[in-house]
Amino acid sequence: MIFEKVKSEIIAHNSYFVGSGNRAAVIDPRRDIDVYLDLSNRYEVRITHIFETHRNEDYVVGSLELANVTGAEIHHGSRLDFSYGRGVKEGDKFEVGMLELEVLETPGHTDESISITLKDRESSNEVYMVFTGDTLFAGDVGRTDLYGEKEKERLASNLYDSLFGKLLKLGEGVIVCSAHGKGSVCGGAIGDLEYTTIGFEKKTNKALQLKDKAAFVARKMREKLDRPPYFRKMEEYNKEGPPLLQRLPPLKAVNVAELKKHRENGAQIVDTRMPTGFSGGHVPKSINIWRSGLPLFIGWMLNYEDPIIIITDGNAALDQTVRYFIRLGYDNLQGYLAGGFPAWYREAEQVEKVNTWSVHEFEKNLEDKSLFILDVRDENKWEQEGHVKNAHHIWVGDLKNRLREVPKEKHVVVYCDSGYKTSIAASILKMNGYEKVTSVLGGIMAWKEAGYPIEKTKQ
Amino acid sequence: MIFEKVKSEIIAHNSYFVGSGNRAAVIDPRRDIDVYLDLSNRYEVRITHIFETHRNEDYVVGSLELANVTGAEIHHGSRLDFSYGRGVKEGDKFEVGMLELEVLETPGHTDESISITLKDRESSNEVYMVFTGDTLFAGDVGRTDLYGEKEKERLASNLYDSLFGKLLKLGEGVIVCSAHGKGSVCGGAIGDLEYTTIGFEKKTNKALQLKDKAAFVARKMREKLDRPPYFRKMEEYNKEGPPLLQRLPPLKAVNVAELKKHRENGAQIVDTRMPTGFSGGHVPKSINIWRSGLPLFIGWMLNYEDPIIIITDGNAALDQTVRYFIRLGYDNLQGYLAGGFPAWYREAEQVEKVNTWSVHEFEKNLEDKSLFILDVRDENKWEQEGHVKNAHHIWVGDLKNRLREVPKEKHVVVYCDSGYKTSIAASILKMNGYEKVTSVLGGIMAWKEAGYPIEKTKQ
Amino acid sequence: MIFEKVKSEIIAHNSYFVGSGNRAAVIDPRRDIDVYLDLSNRYEVRITHIFETHRNEDYVVGSLELANVTGAEIHHGSRLDFSYGRGVKEGDKFEVGMLELEVLETPGHTDESISITLKDRESSNEVYMVFTGDTLFAGDVGRTDLYGEKEKERLASNLYDSLFGKLLKLGEGVIVCSAHGKGSVCGGAIGDLEYTTIGFEKKTNKALQLKDKAAFVARKMREKLDRPPYFRKMEEYNKEGPPLLQRLPPLKAVNVAELKKHRENGAQIVDTRMPTGFSGGHVPKSINIWRSGLPLFIGWMLNYEDPIIIITDGNAALDQTVRYFIRLGYDNLQGYLAGGFPAWYREAEQVEKVNTWSVHEFEKNLEDKSLFILDVRDENKWEQEGHVKNAHHIWVGDLKNRLREVPKEKHVVVYCDSGYKTSIAASILKMNGYEKVTSVLGGIMAWKEAGYPIEKTKQ
Amino acid sequence: MIFEKVKSEIIAHNSYFVGSGNRAAVIDPRRDIDVYLDLSNRYEVRITHIFETHRNEDYVVGSLELANVTGAEIHHGSRLDFSYGRGVKEGDKFEVGMLELEVLETPGHTDESISITLKDRESSNEVYMVFTGDTLFAGDVGRTDLYGEKEKERLASNLYDSLFGKLLKLGEGVIVCSAHGKGSVCGGAIGDLEYTTIGFEKKTNKALQLKDKAAFVARKMREKLDRPPYFRKMEEYNKEGPPLLQRLPPLKAVNVAELKKHRENGAQIVDTRMPTGFSGGHVPKSINIWRSGLPLFIGWMLNYEDPIIIITDGNAALDQTVRYFIRLGYDNLQGYLAGGFPAWYREAEQVEKVNTWSVHEFEKNLEDKSLFILDVRDENKWEQEGHVKNAHHIWVGDLKNRLREVPKEKHVVVYCDSGYKTSIAASILKMNGYEKVTSVLGGIMAWKEAGYPIEKTKQ
Repeated sequence: MIFEKVKSEIIAHNSYFVGSGNRAAVIDPRRDIDVYLDLSNRYEVRITHIFETHRNEDYVVGSLELANVTGAEIHHGSRLDFSYGRGVKEGDKFEVGMLELEVLETPGHTDESISITLKDRESSNEVYMVFTGDTLFAGDVGRTDLYGEKEKERLASNLYDSLFGKLLKLGEGVIVCSAHGKGSVCGGAIGDLEYTTIGFEKKTNKALQLKDKAAFVARKMREKLDRPPYFRKMEEYNKEGPPLLQRLPPLKAVNVAELKKHRENGAQIVDTRMPTGFSGGHVPKSINIWRSGLPLFIGWMLNYEDPIIIITDGNAALDQTVRYFIRLGYDNLQGYLAGGFPAWYREAEQVEKVNTWSVHEFEKNLEDKSLFILDVRDENKWEQEGHVKNAHHIWVGDLKNRLREVPKEKHVVVYCDSGYKTSIAASILKMNGYEKVTSVLGGIMAWKEAGYPIEKTKQ
Repeated sequence: MIFEKVKSEIIAHNSYFVGSGNRAAVIDPRRDIDVYLDLSNRYEVRITHIFETHRNEDYVVGSLELANVTGAEIHHGSRLDFSYGRGVKEGDKFEVGMLELEVLETPGHTDESISITLKDRESSNEVYMVFTGDTLFAGDVGRTDLYGEKEKERLASNLYDSLFGKLLKLGEGVIVCSAHGKGSVCGGAIGDLEYTTIGFEKKTNKALQLKDKAAFVARKMREKLDRPPYFRKMEEYNKEGPPLLQRLPPLKAVNVAELKKHRENGAQIVDTRMPTGFSGGHVPKSINIWRSGLPLFIGWMLNYEDPIIIITDGNAALDQTVRYFIRLGYDNLQGYLAGGFPAWYREAEQVEKVNTWSVHEFEKNLEDKSLFILDVRDENKWEQEGHVKNAHHIWVGDLKNRLREVPKEKHVVVYCDSGYKTSIAASILKMNGYEKVTSVLGGIMAWKEAGYPIEKTKQ
Repeated sequence: MIFEKVKSEIIAHNSYFVGSGNRAAVIDPRRDIDVYLDLSNRYEVRITHIFETHRNEDYVVGSLELANVTGAEIHHGSRLDFSYGRGVKEGDKFEVGMLELEVLETPGHTDESISITLKDRESSNEVYMVFTGDTLFAGDVGRTDLYGEKEKERLASNLYDSLFGKLLKLGEGVIVCSAHGKGSVCGGAIGDLEYTTIGFEKKTNKALQLKDKAAFVARKMREKLDRPPYFRKMEEYNKEGPPLLQRLPPLKAVNVAELKKHRENGAQIVDTRMPTGFSGGHVPKSINIWRSGLPLFIGWMLNYEDPIIIITDGNAALDQTVRYFIRLGYDNLQGYLAGGFPAWYREAEQVEKVNTWSVHEFEKNLEDKSLFILDVRDENKWEQEGHVKNAHHIWVGDLKNRLREVPKEKHVVVYCDSGYKTSIAASILKMNGYEKVTSVLGGIMAWKEAGYPIEKTKQ
Repeated sequence: MIFEKVKSEIIAHNSYFVGSGNRAAVIDPRRDIDVYLDLSNRYEVRITHIFETHRNEDYVVGSLELANVTGAEIHHGSRLDFSYGRGVKEGDKFEVGMLELEVLETPGHTDESISITLKDRESSNEVYMVFTGDTLFAGDVGRTDLYGEKEKERLASNLYDSLFGKLLKLGEGVIVCSAHGKGSVCGGAIGDLEYTTIGFEKKTNKALQLKDKAAFVARKMREKLDRPPYFRKMEEYNKEGPPLLQRLPPLKAVNVAELKKHRENGAQIVDTRMPTGFSGGHVPKSINIWRSGLPLFIGWMLNYEDPIIIITDGNAALDQTVRYFIRLGYDNLQGYLAGGFPAWYREAEQVEKVNTWSVHEFEKNLEDKSLFILDVRDENKWEQEGHVKNAHHIWVGDLKNRLREVPKEKHVVVYCDSGYKTSIAASILKMNGYEKVTSVLGGIMAWKEAGYPIEKTKQ
């Protein structure tokens, strides 16, 4: 059989292309669908089936885009009222060449979540693989908090049944293909393994080691996970069907004068350089999200209305950058500064800077009373891993809304895990008129490496 | 300055991407515009100007497609009433960074033909290049027969004035960038040179060596050039604006049963394998146009209505094939046989064959009275280069319409220049019920190489 | 962890690249090692360990090539006296970042065969994967006949112990990564699955369903598998260390005159076109092995001494072709005919042809007494799947040595499974002076599809 | 004819691939020869001739590398005693398919310099192109100072004769293909034009506008051009034949501990990030040469003995980087820091910084007596374009040798044209123990843009 895993880096989304004879199916396609079309050409097959394991909340689905081009039919769980595609139920079977795909209803992450088992009848009549969507991952299980606090218990209970009542019964040797890998916002502890099996998860997945359903539900009730604001948009898009793209929108090269004009009109200026580059100099009123961080943070930081302009080091990697944005529905990405940041200062424009400190400089100044020490890691890290003495905690995703907690007259020293989120936070502070801002290079990681002391907040 | 020549292979169409600062212009863009967008990203420039040197008749222009994506403005000669873009006149100037582009009206090939001179003011104020469209080529000048016999003399006279009165006066050192290279149907004797200059053409271009305008016009009046039927569609498209594509349409993989269904419903089955492969076996009712011959012959052989299905050796080179078709407006290209021709015979379908002869076998049988020897080269070759004894001449492009001149009961032996057009002709004969058909491998080229005699038809 | 499977198409060889931190290991590297260097750059890791699961017999190993460039150390089983690398024993452990690789001695396919288990201690301390070399495949187990008839029983017994005593005890959920996929000559019934697991193999692998060791050994004793003559060269190379390549050797473009010179001097002329193309016309004294068949048949058909020249359709796919040859140690590949086969007949050279028949034409002529019907499929197919009436059987790999069994004065009609091996056989017959040769398109596959009768030879 | 220009970016070296029939020649090949092999495959031709227009001094020639792989013969001027290849003389002719290449001896840049005219006899018997090496460029002529002060006049006089006596007489329409484009160290004022012609140069090239030989020689005598120290190595290599590479050497990923070890042992640590990134933080004792500046500055800054380690932003662009180094003979490039600069500070290593100023901050502090203002532009710029008040001038290439002119106790403010060379200089100062160092972003370009005053040094 044909089997290809298609990974969307950083958001750690997995989709799957499976085929046999001259037919193929795609499970959970992403919005930039060229990869599936290329695969169908390479293998000389026609894509006839598309499956959505659930209404994804962390990226824009590519089902409509792919169906539009190929004529394939879209299938998803029938317990949600999607505006497109066709609902399927437990036991529904689909033939794709010699492959047999069968639907398992596995509610828990969402009510309409399905898993799909695959048999390759050319080799045997046993279940060979299962596509588990956001129900089961390598090392973790799906989050159950997306319907809000009230529904959490019900969903956790459903998830337990889906896992223990269905998936784990498939047989230890069944290969598990889930919708996400390590780093995804859809699970807290997804492992860094390309593939896993029912047997390996039974042995090693912490969520599956608990003694009974009550313990499982209790664990899920305690779980705290980030929920970026862009999820709302994704949920709406993926239920109603997102706008068709046809082709990746080309970015416009803008010059310095045009950039300034855009900025005046409210454009969101995103500097995608690394934190040290941003520190050394940047365009006033720009936000710094390093390139590989875009998929993780634009959903927290940017709105869907104002145009977005990119600033780079002169190596825009435009194709990749555009994909990062349109995968999250940011079709308002407009242009990039031609020539990168150097084009800005060569024209004698004002340049902002952020001070940087190594952890050693940080440690030396720790008792300085004029400092306001700001820890912008996520809640779990803050609580469980400890922090630097005297630090105040605001998760970087909340900083824009909690600026009044940060005194403007102080010298604000920001740190995070290793220094990237720090630079996002520093850029937000600079945009909002904070004058003395310092980024700690290496964050808590370097701090511990240097052997400096960690404090735990009493809870 | 930025200078990139973009060649569309085989139709030998040239377009040009020129830029300076962060701006660029495109001259005569083709319909699959991704190449220009890639260039604008690589050089970090924005495409602001598009020029059409004339209403092209041999391919679908990409101006609207490119303008739609980039927002650039389209410019063309004002003497034709285009449904899009903006008319320009002699002396109109455009700045693209430090480049200055200036319009020369150079009627002759068509009435609204323009040339565009380029100065790069960063290096000097002299004319550096000229984009001559279909007015002047390396080794030839534009054809003047497209408006019909009546207008030919007027156009030839205009062309003379454009060449001698304008282009040749630009200075010998000016680099000439024309819209076509060797092999194009837009000129009979275009040379195989990437670039040329006014000085080199003055010395070597035969059309420019004549003693006066009368001699020039007389030469043009004698010229006989093919005019493929698809020109009509191109002229209409390029005046009115062709349909937007957005993305290259993906081809569907079809299986044998589907192919047969399509064939019954009138689909055009195009076998793109080499002549020897087609001879060894092929799908009944298919036409053989080898892959590199598609750009040259689909415009003669295929209609714009019935769907088109491709057969290959299992190596479809789909991306390239799709481009060949959509560049000539064949948006009715639909699918390809998955697995190539072997998929056909593996399912025990009927197989047709064509006999092949080397020139030696041909020569041995030359006096056989049951043969009908058919020469399918173009008119000029037939008249000027001689032919095999007893041969009848029908240009391959006319064969479909002149089949009644070919006796069905005879053994038809087809030859051409080297054997490719022969196979097109052989496939047409087979489709039309001719039972004994032989293709000569190597054609007149091998015939001469072997030292066999050539006859000249009295004229 | 980093995990990449590197497939060498057609010989269906799998190698694996695994990494963690900034270190990586490669298991069973192939000779064209650029792919591993590219991966090490992409992931920013250094390759420090190379493992050979056994002395491979079906391709040239890339260990020395890779060690030469990276400085990594080579490891292999200690029960064979390799001229390079370092022997390892049961229980030896290796750390690659957070990965732990541990050696299992698993003799059976060869005496020094090892398997390697992998734990990713970042996720757990359980065995996650096992690299099984040629010991266990998806759907089959390693062949035990390579040491000759006398050793077969001992090896089969050892293999049983390695499988049941070690590999199957690893746990059902362990992912199995073997050295070969479907189509390899290293196993008769390897399944077409990218990955498998211990649990899935326990359930579905026929060799693992037998009731005891005796039954397992008996099954292995009955097994008949091809053993191409090139195995001898590979075994020698892989024990002693093959010559270093440094870079893929570039092929020379030769013209017709040069090709003829080479042919006179004994060069092996290999026509890589499809069977129908070869039938329609070919260079006298050339052998036809279609391009995708090269990895499977050059080891049967070509020697390592005489230079090899390639003929194509003018699309040489040179990079791929060179890899096919050098992976099997054919460093004597020298050139290709520039312009492909058309260059040959355009120069009026002699052309040979092979007649083709559809299965319907074949069936109509079946009783013709002047025919000699030749079945060139492998022994197993001939015995188990039946054949056409009156057919004689000679496996295509043996044909050169058994030509005296084929009467020269007869019209030889060749068939195989679907028509590819047929064309190899037809070309061998033509080279050896057989005048009437016909290839059946579609072979036994089309014959059955058409509903024609099959005979079984009594055994 | 086949014509391909192969550009080596930044060193602005041009080589040319020309062919006809199935033969090709390469003029002035670079050391990473894969591009020529790819072209010979694409066009199905064999490279039979290699020409060296002169003993290049600015890059390692690829002639031996290419001859080693293809068997082509190397040709160069006979007035220098090369250790390889074959000397050619005025009027020597070479046939490459239908092309005729003819040698013109054009001494001046060096004594053995040759130019090569090309006729494509398929189109005419006129000279179509001329390959002028370092004799004539678009906008400039070759430098005549490489043999030292004493020989300059003789060489300039020879160059005049070569230009006016030979090249300019070829005809205005002849296309000129020179060995360098804009940015090369081989000419001071090479224009930014892909191609030029004899006619265009006659009109616009300043060196060709002078009234007589005496004026021409006088102009050349006044010319001051950089001569990087690596020229000596290139001259030696290119006369004797450089070491063969076979394949691009792979870079090793090193971790922080290994980097420190290398540094202790004298390795040259090259940080290839942009100036703002370097300013924000860097590894102590590293030199900053931004990636695109490598080809221009490694020849000034690095030696050929100590190993070289690269630091990046985590996007090493390794293939390109390796090519930059090996083109200049730096085969001692060894490794790169895996994970880029962030890997350094995450391990709590010491971080150095450089202060940055916009031109506005610079201007505000201009009268501060504690500053030492250092202008590191080249001599011509300093003299001709003026400078900032109170600046001291040391060309960045000389800084290492003139450090004693820079007072260590001062706050050293460095500027250049736009800010890149500044960062090289700043890194040299930091490595040498200067504590207060500031880089001016945008340099003299931004300074003028802002309208700040320029001073001219009296000469």
